[in-house]
Amino acid sequence: MRATVFHGPNDIRIEEVPRPSAGAGEAVIRITLTTICGTDLHILRGEYAVKPGLVIGHEPVGVIEELGEGVTGYAIGDRVLVGAITPCGQCRACLSAQWSQCGHGEGVEAIGGWRFGNTINGAQAEYLLVPNAQANLAKIPDELSDEQVVLLADIASTGFSGAESGNIRIGDTVVVLAQGPIGLCATAGAKLMGASFIIAVDGDPVRMKMSKQMGADVVLDPKQCDVVAEVRKLTGGGADVAIESLGLQETFENALRSLRAGGTLSSLGVYSGKLQVPYDAFAAGIGDYKIVTTLCPGGKERMRRLMSMVQSKRFDPTPLLTHSFKLDQIVEAYDLFGSRRDGVLKVAIRP
Amino acid sequence: MRATVFHGPNDIRIEEVPRPSAGAGEAVIRITLTTICGTDLHILRGEYAVKPGLVIGHEPVGVIEELGEGVTGYAIGDRVLVGAITPCGQCRACLSAQWSQCGHGEGVEAIGGWRFGNTINGAQAEYLLVPNAQANLAKIPDELSDEQVVLLADIASTGFSGAESGNIRIGDTVVVLAQGPIGLCATAGAKLMGASFIIAVDGDPVRMKMSKQMGADVVLDPKQCDVVAEVRKLTGGGADVAIESLGLQETFENALRSLRAGGTLSSLGVYSGKLQVPYDAFAAGIGDYKIVTTLCPGGKERMRRLMSMVQSKRFDPTPLLTHSFKLDQIVEAYDLFGSRRDGVLKVAIRP
Amino acid sequence: MRATVFHGPNDIRIEEVPRPSAGAGEAVIRITLTTICGTDLHILRGEYAVKPGLVIGHEPVGVIEELGEGVTGYAIGDRVLVGAITPCGQCRACLSAQWSQCGHGEGVEAIGGWRFGNTINGAQAEYLLVPNAQANLAKIPDELSDEQVVLLADIASTGFSGAESGNIRIGDTVVVLAQGPIGLCATAGAKLMGASFIIAVDGDPVRMKMSKQMGADVVLDPKQCDVVAEVRKLTGGGADVAIESLGLQETFENALRSLRAGGTLSSLGVYSGKLQVPYDAFAAGIGDYKIVTTLCPGGKERMRRLMSMVQSKRFDPTPLLTHSFKLDQIVEAYDLFGSRRDGVLKVAIRP
Amino acid sequence: MRATVFHGPNDIRIEEVPRPSAGAGEAVIRITLTTICGTDLHILRGEYAVKPGLVIGHEPVGVIEELGEGVTGYAIGDRVLVGAITPCGQCRACLSAQWSQCGHGEGVEAIGGWRFGNTINGAQAEYLLVPNAQANLAKIPDELSDEQVVLLADIASTGFSGAESGNIRIGDTVVVLAQGPIGLCATAGAKLMGASFIIAVDGDPVRMKMSKQMGADVVLDPKQCDVVAEVRKLTGGGADVAIESLGLQETFENALRSLRAGGTLSSLGVYSGKLQVPYDAFAAGIGDYKIVTTLCPGGKERMRRLMSMVQSKRFDPTPLLTHSFKLDQIVEAYDLFGSRRDGVLKVAIRP
Repeated sequence: MRATVFHGPNDIRIEEVPRPSAGAGEAVIRITLTTICGTDLHILRGEYAVKPGLVIGHEPVGVIEELGEGVTGYAIGDRVLVGAITPCGQCRACLSAQWSQCGHGEGVEAIGGWRFGNTINGAQAEYLLVPNAQANLAKIPDELSDEQVVLLADIASTGFSGAESGNIRIGDTVVVLAQGPIGLCATAGAKLMGASFIIAVDGDPVRMKMSKQMGADVVLDPKQCDVVAEVRKLTGGGADVAIESLGLQETFENALRSLRAGGTLSSLGVYSGKLQVPYDAFAAGIGDYKIVTTLCPGGKERMRRLMSMVQSKRFDPTPLLTHSFKLDQIVEAYDLFGSRRDGVLKVAIRP
Repeated sequence: MRATVFHGPNDIRIEEVPRPSAGAGEAVIRITLTTICGTDLHILRGEYAVKPGLVIGHEPVGVIEELGEGVTGYAIGDRVLVGAITPCGQCRACLSAQWSQCGHGEGVEAIGGWRFGNTINGAQAEYLLVPNAQANLAKIPDELSDEQVVLLADIASTGFSGAESGNIRIGDTVVVLAQGPIGLCATAGAKLMGASFIIAVDGDPVRMKMSKQMGADVVLDPKQCDVVAEVRKLTGGGADVAIESLGLQETFENALRSLRAGGTLSSLGVYSGKLQVPYDAFAAGIGDYKIVTTLCPGGKERMRRLMSMVQSKRFDPTPLLTHSFKLDQIVEAYDLFGSRRDGVLKVAIRP
Repeated sequence: MRATVFHGPNDIRIEEVPRPSAGAGEAVIRITLTTICGTDLHILRGEYAVKPGLVIGHEPVGVIEELGEGVTGYAIGDRVLVGAITPCGQCRACLSAQWSQCGHGEGVEAIGGWRFGNTINGAQAEYLLVPNAQANLAKIPDELSDEQVVLLADIASTGFSGAESGNIRIGDTVVVLAQGPIGLCATAGAKLMGASFIIAVDGDPVRMKMSKQMGADVVLDPKQCDVVAEVRKLTGGGADVAIESLGLQETFENALRSLRAGGTLSSLGVYSGKLQVPYDAFAAGIGDYKIVTTLCPGGKERMRRLMSMVQSKRFDPTPLLTHSFKLDQIVEAYDLFGSRRDGVLKVAIRP
Repeated sequence: MRATVFHGPNDIRIEEVPRPSAGAGEAVIRITLTTICGTDLHILRGEYAVKPGLVIGHEPVGVIEELGEGVTGYAIGDRVLVGAITPCGQCRACLSAQWSQCGHGEGVEAIGGWRFGNTINGAQAEYLLVPNAQANLAKIPDELSDEQVVLLADIASTGFSGAESGNIRIGDTVVVLAQGPIGLCATAGAKLMGASFIIAVDGDPVRMKMSKQMGADVVLDPKQCDVVAEVRKLTGGGADVAIESLGLQETFENALRSLRAGGTLSSLGVYSGKLQVPYDAFAAGIGDYKIVTTLCPGGKERMRRLMSMVQSKRFDPTPLLTHSFKLDQIVEAYDLFGSRRDGVLKVAIRP
């Protein structure tokens, strides 16, 4: 089969690899739609290390091709969405409701739940082996298209979780720092949870416009204003919740400084290098601040819930899918996506 | 193998039945210790219906005899504890953190998580087939005996959950209505969670004494006093949390009437017939009361946590194991347990 | 001043009473807009007892006329909204975050937080004495009219709290039983918190139409279908949350029967007489169901939050204000409101 | 009256100052017992700035001498405990259940709730003016001595809150970094909430011994071992909760590194300068870690709850009160307390 293989920094290639087959508890799906994630860019650029030879990608929509022993309630040909994170449901972490930190059986490892395109072959290919299929195959309702669900696998699940972990309540003021695809979904999530006022922060004109469409009341351009001062003014003293969705010292720090005492910083970003907690913004430790981090929730029930939101028209992710490529053009698609040219937000990849 | 088979109301027999073998994802354990539960009495008396021919019992301690395909991280001969409730970890309920309402795959059924001695063969036998073994086999630390862990499978897990679902906080006053084995464990759980004052209610002298040993500050005999008036006096206006552990209209109603406004009634009892919520005790619906019900949490992580409490000497369930029988004497054991003669609390059954 | 005085069942009169003055910690406001609540009808009909001679009503919008000693941060002439429930902020209940069960100082009484038109003079008058003014005067932003905020004092605060206490999460299915003013606000609250699918239940054509406007996806007429069966079908096995907003055995029971295992019944109704918990719908106590009751949250911070939702156009309560009367016409207004004639939902009363 | 006055770094003096009198909502108490806090040392050393001329100290036990207008339910001569933090109960923060961030009326300021010996005169004096007396005077039960309650005002309330904010559950493993008075109370709090295994970290022999008495299962000396490696070994992969109670980069970092994925760092320390979140220990932001900070909860209900724990013998703080001084000897007491000589933990100061 054709697959996107990582060979080393700045070296991914579409090539022929053996097609997987399903063991006990597993399934193979034929990919009908997938996409590229910011994390894939980190891999491509050598900023996040994976083993050469790995098929990358972790946002799969497809059709069941093969079901391993013990997987019940599914049929060959079922259309399914699989989350980026694939919890086993049966280990210590999963049975503690920390599915994203799944240890696959007995072991317990950090970030254990992220396997596709990280520790096992991923979704930018014609076929995908799905581990723990019973917990991870989410049937797609007939009335939903592939395009309506592919962004739920990672970015909507992650973005919404930023709002959920921030424990947003009716009437909260929320600031969302950076409006890439995940930040845009965090903005949508904040709106869905009842925030009374949402301030988004980004300087890219395409993203600023999309941010309003996703629910922001105000969008601040960090190059044009003092974000912290402006948020504190607009919220009368600080936001109740700040969502960080970029992974930089600057956005992390601005998020913390934007909060009122007792506020929550919900962090989605993947950071590199050291991270400073500014002493003063943290009220020296006695401001009752909370910092919570969340890795994309996965599993079939999460996917079912997210699809139900699209089905009932509470949330429409399709405007974020701005460009479309064939799988064989994926190197080109990586280039466009990485460059942020041409108003790109997310690219559809079709095998 | 020898097993306790239900044939109809008041008719259980020890007899020879085929020994199970393990399919994919399953395990067979050789039972080394089990016990009889109040629910088993309901089955025996025909108050809770199960199919004739079923092997009953749901509190298994044993040794792994056979491991089905796909079960990893265990070895034949491992000593294990299995909870009364056996969640699959992979269905909608489990992936929503409602493991006790597990639907085993795609279906969703109420009380679906309770299978042993209810919908599949149970533990009062020489061997037991464990479904979803990966999620349910909890290894027993070497330093713990079978006797120290057998009561964790159901009664300690249930009793503690009464305190946990009541969300007991440091400084709460708590009343626990009825001090059977589950109520006694609820008392112990309330103490473990930081209740400042625990009032237990029971009239049986053996249970009243054991109640103090488990953590009660005061034990009220409902035949000797007006329980509600006494609780309200001792707590200065009502308890913060009331735990019901019997399943009767009287204890349910007294629990509700014992609460202060805004309090929580944590209900563990299995009720039969209609249940009245007294209009006045409920403040007509505007007293900010909560009523929460909980079915025994199961799964290997729950068992691991409970065993860790015994290991570190925070909790000792062995005083509740008052009598011991061979499996072949189990009809006699049921008779003693059902009669509450001779200070019986729980009986050890050894195949 | 002119005020609406309760003299006995079916006997309220507009008459001249002494104008209040403010002691330490109190304020007097000149009422500019108020309304009639379903609870006022219960009082009028003698179904809820208050003392003859009491001025009734508990939904006040007005202008500060007098400030007692120790009330700071306000000026004569400030426009304010005051919640139906007036917590002191300083008693055991308030300092335990149970403001609705406020005991006003040292005493602790059930439903203690509801004072206006219950234990002290209320809002259907020209002037109103506000106790614990520091905690209860919520300044109205200039851009909001009296009509935009008057329904926040009770019905929106109560309705939203039904969704909040139900702990609705993104993707939940919700059923709201009865679509009177509070049920309609519960529907709006469920939508605001991210419910994926909302089923409202009511048979009145005006309310059915308004229900869709407030966020219901489907409205069921209980006279035309089997509500429980229909909800279970539409939700694939039962709703995650059921909100009861009428206070009848039938709606309470249907709410419970509509839930999936592990679901939450959030009850807002004021019940009279005995209430049955049907044994089977409750899964005999082991279905992990929760029943939570909530009295209208009050205090100035709650009012500020609700006003912020109107300001940012997340919620518009004005369609519920269907009729308008002068204070002197209030007996006529009670008659219309009580009869549910002419599509009435809430009536504006202007002194 | 005699009072401890801050004049500048390393310059506090006992001197005669005017005795306060009570305005509306206030009270004056005659101090019968107080103590010195680590924060007072920071003030003395010029590390935390307060205005010269301020009376310092924030842990008052006394007798009501004068009650201002509007304070009800108390009598002159009542023995009372007042928390270090004195919420008003009536501002935005208090009505949002964030009493420690109280803004006293309309303003909202970080750390607004800490007033005694910070923004208003404090407790190391013969008399103390208590603001918002209705919310802050906690009557002391007759059977409790001053010595049994004085440490509840700050250190027990703070220490317990470290366990509470860490949301410790039955069966959790907990590490508490540093065993000063607050760390010792955090250890006690972790035990009270049901931790199965508590690892304390401190190298001081007196504190190591007291730590065991307060509930630690193991005490690690950071000079003798690699704390992080040892905690990870003892807990089988990392603790569920780490409580930081010192305020240093090293303890903060060790706390984070000691956690398993998904764990909670509950921080009590007062930090100075920059704080680093080590990139790797934080799993780059995707380890589902939480960092929560808590300022000492105050108010009379908190004090009532803590006193109830002493009354029922769940917690005994008196072993921490190692030395005793007269108010006139307080400079000497500061010297001993600051030097940590002679096994000092907390000193009793008696006017």
